[in-house]
Parts: sequence; C-alpha cells; structure tokens
Amino acid sequence: MTNNLHPLGQSILDRAEALARFSDMEGGLTCAFLTPAHRSAQALLAQWMEAAGMQVRTDAIGNVIGRYAADAAAGGDARVLMTGSHFDTVRNGGRYDGRLGILLPIAVVGALHAAGIRLPYHLDVVGFAEEEGLRFKTSFLASSVLAGRFDPALLARTDADGVTMREALAASGLPGNGELAALQAAAVDPAALLGFVEVHIEQGPVLLDKGLALGVVTQIAGSSRFQVRVEGQASHAGTTPMGMRRDAAAGAAEMILLVEARCSAAPTLVGTVGQLQIPDGSSNVIPAACTFSMDIRAGEDGIREAAIADIVAGIQQIAARRGLSAHVDRVRPVQNAPCARWLMDQFGAVLRKRGLPAFELPSGAGHDAMMMQRITDVAMLFVRCGNGGISHNPLETITAEDAQLAAEVFVDFLRHFQPQG
Amino acid sequence: MTNNLHPLGQSILDRAEALARFSDMEGGLTCAFLTPAHRSAQALLAQWMEAAGMQVRTDAIGNVIGRYAADAAAGGDARVLMTGSHFDTVRNGGRYDGRLGILLPIAVVGALHAAGIRLPYHLDVVGFAEEEGLRFKTSFLASSVLAGRFDPALLARTDADGVTMREALAASGLPGNGELAALQAAAVDPAALLGFVEVHIEQGPVLLDKGLALGVVTQIAGSSRFQVRVEGQASHAGTTPMGMRRDAAAGAAEMILLVEARCSAAPTLVGTVGQLQIPDGSSNVIPAACTFSMDIRAGEDGIREAAIADIVAGIQQIAARRGLSAHVDRVRPVQNAPCARWLMDQFGAVLRKRGLPAFELPSGAGHDAMMMQRITDVAMLFVRCGNGGISHNPLETITAEDAQLAAEVFVDFLRHFQPQG
Repeated sequence: MTNNLHPLGQSILDRAEALARFSDMEGGLTCAFLTPAHRSAQALLAQWMEAAGMQVRTDAIGNVIGRYAADAAAGGDARVLMTGSHFDTVRNGGRYDGRLGILLPIAVVGALHAAGIRLPYHLDVVGFAEEEGLRFKTSFLASSVLAGRFDPALLARTDADGVTMREALAASGLPGNGELAALQAAAVDPAALLGFVEVHIEQGPVLLDKGLALGVVTQIAGSSRFQVRVEGQASHAGTTPMGMRRDAAAGAAEMILLVEARCSAAPTLVGTVGQLQIPDGSSNVIPAACTFSMDIRAGEDGIREAAIADIVAGIQQIAARRGLSAHVDRVRPVQNAPCARWLMDQFGAVLRKRGLPAFELPSGAGHDAMMMQRITDVAMLFVRCGNGGISHNPLETITAEDAQLAAEVFVDFLRHFQPQG
Repeated sequence: MTNNLHPLGQSILDRAEALARFSDMEGGLTCAFLTPAHRSAQALLAQWMEAAGMQVRTDAIGNVIGRYAADAAAGGDARVLMTGSHFDTVRNGGRYDGRLGILLPIAVVGALHAAGIRLPYHLDVVGFAEEEGLRFKTSFLASSVLAGRFDPALLARTDADGVTMREALAASGLPGNGELAALQAAAVDPAALLGFVEVHIEQGPVLLDKGLALGVVTQIAGSSRFQVRVEGQASHAGTTPMGMRRDAAAGAAEMILLVEARCSAAPTLVGTVGQLQIPDGSSNVIPAACTFSMDIRAGEDGIREAAIADIVAGIQQIAARRGLSAHVDRVRPVQNAPCARWLMDQFGAVLRKRGLPAFELPSGAGHDAMMMQRITDVAMLFVRCGNGGISHNPLETITAEDAQLAAEVFVDFLRHFQPQG
C-alpha cells in the first residue's frame, strides 16, 4: 500500500481505509455517536496521535484531542492553533468526510515530529465526536461542547431506540459520565485560541470542474432544517372517492415538489427532503399523517430566507386547499459563517508560492468550523472530491496525489503561520 | 347499556365495544394476526358462539368456526350455509369493520336458539382470523385457507420484527402448529356448501347519502396492490446543485401525484399510496431510495387495468426523465367478484317484504366473500356507516337501530333461505 511518489498522501488514504473498517453496518461505513464502531475509531485516532508525538486527551463529549506542544522557546504562555474535523459519519457515508481533517494533520504532525521541527505555538488536532446528527438528530454536537455552546436540553433527546443522550454518555465511560457540568467544563478558553483551521473534502464538484486540487473557503453556507408534519383524515382506501379524501401523503408529495421547484430558482440555493414517512401506514388506508424533513441552504442568508418564506407559505396553501393541516417546525437555523480574511490570505500565500492559484469558493455543506467560528476566527482548506463530487456516499473519493499536496500546503501554512495583528 | 327498543342491535354494539378492548395499542383498536389481543378476541368469540348454542372449533390458521347444527329432520347429509367476516383490524381501525359480520350472526343464532328454532341446514358462523394484511402484508389470509387457496410461500414471509408466519403459527398453539399439511387440510369441501353470505358495514357514504339502513351488494371491486421502489443516487444535501441530483423522493412525490390525478379521472376508480418511506433517510442526504405502496381499485376490471397501465408507464417516464430507476412489483391482483343473483334476490325479497327498497350497490372494499367466491356463490348485506361513511378509523360507527334492522333481516333471510335450483 506504500506509494513512494506521495508518501504522506498515501498514508492518509490508508488510514482512512483502516478507520472505515469500524462500522455500525455490514458492507458500508456508518459510524454514529457512541456506538461500538465509534468508540473503536476514537481509540485508534488517539493511538495515531500519540504515535505522531502528541499528548492526547478525550473530553466529556468524546472529542479526542491531541496536542503537538509548542517549542520550549515559546514559553509557558504559548497560545493554541486548533485544527480538526469530525469522525462520525452519515449512514452509509464516505470515508473522507470529516476524517481527512483529522488524519491529514496527524500525518503532518508526525512528519514534523520525525524531522524534529517544533512550532512556536501549540497545535491542537481535534477529532470531533459528532457533527452529522445521525443518532440524536442534532448536528455540531461535539463542536458545540468545545465552543461552550452545548444546549442542555439535548441530554434528554432520544435515539431511535429510545436511549437518551444522557444515558448514552453515562454508559460510555467518557469523563464526566454525561453530567452537564462536565460538558460545560469541556469548553475551550477562546482567549487561548489563535484560530481554527479545518481541512475537508469539498463534497461537491467545483474543484473537480475547475481542475484544481485545493481551494480556500470563503464562507460556510447557513442551513435551515425543518420537520414538517402534514395531517389529514384516515379513511378506507377502497371506498372513499378521490374527491372526498384528505390524504396527508398526497399533500406532502405536492410540498416536496414545491421545495424542489423553488430551490431550483436561484444558483447557490439547494433544498432537500431527506426523511419522509407515513407513520403507521397501511397500504389500504388513506394516510392520516405524513412527516418529512426539509434542509434548505444557500450561499447567502437572504436568498435562503426568501426561499424559506415562499416554501412555508406554499406548504400552508397546499394544506388549506386540500383540507389538511401542516405544522412546520424549524429545527436548527444556522447563519452563514464567513471565514477570516487574514487566515484565508495565509493559505492563499502558501498556494501562490507553489505556483498554484489561490482559488476561493464557498462551502455548501456545514462543518465544525461553523460552530468554532462563534468563538474564534476560522479558515478552511478544501480538497478535490472525485467521482463527480459525490459525498455522503460510499463513492466519495480523493487521490493520494491531492492528499499529498494538501498535506504539504498544510505544513507550509503551519510553518509560516503568523498570528493576527 | 341495554336498549329496549333495539335489543339485538344494542347487544351487537355492546359486544363490538367489549371485543375492541383487546388491542395491540393504547387508546385505539389494533388487532393484528396472532398477537395477544388477537388471541383474546378469538377466545371471546368462541365463548359467545358456545353460549349462543353453537359447536365451536378453531382451525389451523386461527379461524374460529361455530356451527348451529341443522334440525334433526334434515338428516345426516345436511349441507352448510356459511356466514362470517374477519376479526383482525387495520392499525387504529374501527370496531365494526369485519366484526359486525361475526357478532350479528352470533346474536341471530342466539335468538333462534333461545326460541327453539332450528334451520333445515347447518349454519356455520366464521370469525376469519386475518383479512386486512397488517402483520404479514398479505390480505385474505384466513379465507384463503378455508377456500383451499393458501399460498405456501407465505409461511416464510416475515413481520416487522423478522418473525416468519411459520414461526408465529408454530408458537400460537393453533392446531397443526403452522404445518403446511394442516393448513391445506383446513380447506372446506365446496360440495358441502350452499353458499357464503357476509354482513358488513359499508365503509363508505352511499347508504348514508341515500338515507337507507341496508343495501345488497352487487359485486366486490377488484383491487391491485403494488410495491414501488424508486432508486436514485445518495449525495450531500448542501453541496449537490439541484440540477445534478437524482433524488428518489422527489421522483416518488411526482409519482404519487400521478396516481392521484389518474385515479380522479373515472367515477369508481380510486388509488391510494398508504405506505411511503425513505429507507434509512437522513435530513442532510439526498435520498438514494424511496419506497411506496399503491392500491388501485375500480368498479370494473377494465377501468382499473387501464389506469394501472397508464400509471405504471407514467412511473417509468418520470424515473427516466429524472435519471432514476423504478421497480413496480404487483403484490396481489384481485379480480372483481360478482355476487350471485339468486342470493341477492333472496335478500331483496326479505327487504321488500318489510317495505324497504332492495337497494343494490357495489363494494369498493375487498371482503372475505371475495375469496369465498372462488369456491361458492356469495352475497353481502351492507349496513349503513355513520360519520360521513368513514372507516379504517376510530370514528367508524353504526347505530343500534340499523344493527337491529340488519339482524331482523338476517333472521328472515335464514328462515326463508332456499338453496339454489
């Protein structure tokens, strides 16, 4: 599995493959918060961090944090540059989403350590335990703890088996056993932070289309998530004339097409219904209820909010016309998170020094950096995504060559990093 | 709870209420095949049949069959008039659907028995154990056994918990323990049958709209059930432009609206999508798959089949246009079942003798009589359904007055019954 042309890049790909062997499912990669697969992945990351020369700790939410301590010359009050991403996945997801942003810094630190190079600041590499929201329907969980933004109400939230987050944490053996005080104490001190930088696979086709391996992120698009519940009237499928029906699923179908049509009307706007069901449906009963999720994002908050206003109004119009009721609950509005120009410029300078364009692009996907941006300046380096830009899918891929280049650029960035001001 | 004006009718309503206390759910009536509630309902029906003067047996599929033996004068070779309906329910269903057709004959036999009246033929009252298809997604299960039409492949079918029908029957304590030979031996001899008559709540608004308590069914509308699986491409909800998506749920939504539109184009035609889901859906992943059920019925086979042809072709067109694939599996095609004119006429004569119109109407819903029609002549007496004709819903209702009239008409029918030819 060695690749002499791209040793760092190949080692990153090999480790992503090894990490993907821990899965909650057969024949694919699912790694949900605090499952056995998740705990195994966490332990392996800690092991790799230690081997790379870091001091490792695990916090109350399950983040594994490796510190590559500053050069002794920096003195006792050295500040911290933080990097990292998440190691949980969506269901049947890709092996690079999140994980590249942990494995690449580990590889880079290992190389610096092997070369005897220390940095004039602490470098903390964080494996965030939960970003995707798969198990408890809450995303950015791990970064919210680190950012001191943990919502205590989440402890009572249950997974599909009725296990609460509090119970899952108490049974996990993590420090604090799910106590709120421990979760709150796990927050980092923003004053100690120099910034947060995240390496991530693009999860889209832009770099691929441009023929570029790397890009600097300008901003992370806000997302708005909703749960919609449409209610009608159960009745017999064989005896109720079409004109007398109040069919919740037919209404929901019309709403789903509305989401699709409205979100096709502006360039960066996207809208997705990713969960959909008729609760307790029977094939011979007209649906009394239909529920679906709605995820709406755009490059600009204004474009997103205008689409949401139109869609919510349209849903109510469809419901009224069909004699249905529709309840639209906004789950988690996230504003657009701009990246810091001074950090972007340092990535740009490194790229240009190598003769590469400092191509800038927005991120349509949410990332841990979005939460960290609430307490410190952030930047992101995107790595080209193969297979047409597909992600959240087993087909997600990157090349060893791109991973190598990203690692080298990251080394340059770290070595030339200048704190702001 | 007594009602001196309508003693038989009120006793039927009281028993329907008592039977509905056995349920798989809190706060509503669900009685699925071979659940504890189902076994309790079966035992109570057997008890009531015995109390009414019948000899009771339970067969290999769980049908409870009470025989009100023929007058001794009929001799040892008396033939059998069969009546009955099912006691399983849909999820959160009504208490009269099916059950009225068991409780009313029990009440009638009890009254005949109390009056010392015997009939010149055996009257078998059948409580069919399964008609709705809730647990194993197969309807007419119990009547298929009685009609000698049991499909052996069904024994391997699993419920939502992965329990096979064979395992459920083996654990049930029913005679035969789920052995195929026992299920096949439970078939009745068609030569011994004089016919099959079924009393049923209309489950629709026609009698209510006409101001009539009772109606004679002309035919039972065929139904065609399908399972549709739409497949697309999973991808990231935030980064995949709308124009690059192959969203299985958006395709399914368009197909559901096609079913609705096409089935609104002919008077007796109805089409229902009662089950719908995105398997393993996540709110931030474009759906790779979406599955739904499709139930299509019409007063005429030709109208139904034309609609099905259009819908299946339309589904493929939608899939092709969207870069999806669609798999349409026909689950159980059921042809229209005509009722026997000679039996209908005997019901009509009884109604007219009471000064009531012999109103005839088709049944949009499937019934046990539909399966029994494969081995003997059948007829059905419909009883008016309150609350706008709603059924498969807790709001399903009938009045004591209508139940009394139906019981009296059924007594007259039995006492004046003349075998064919």
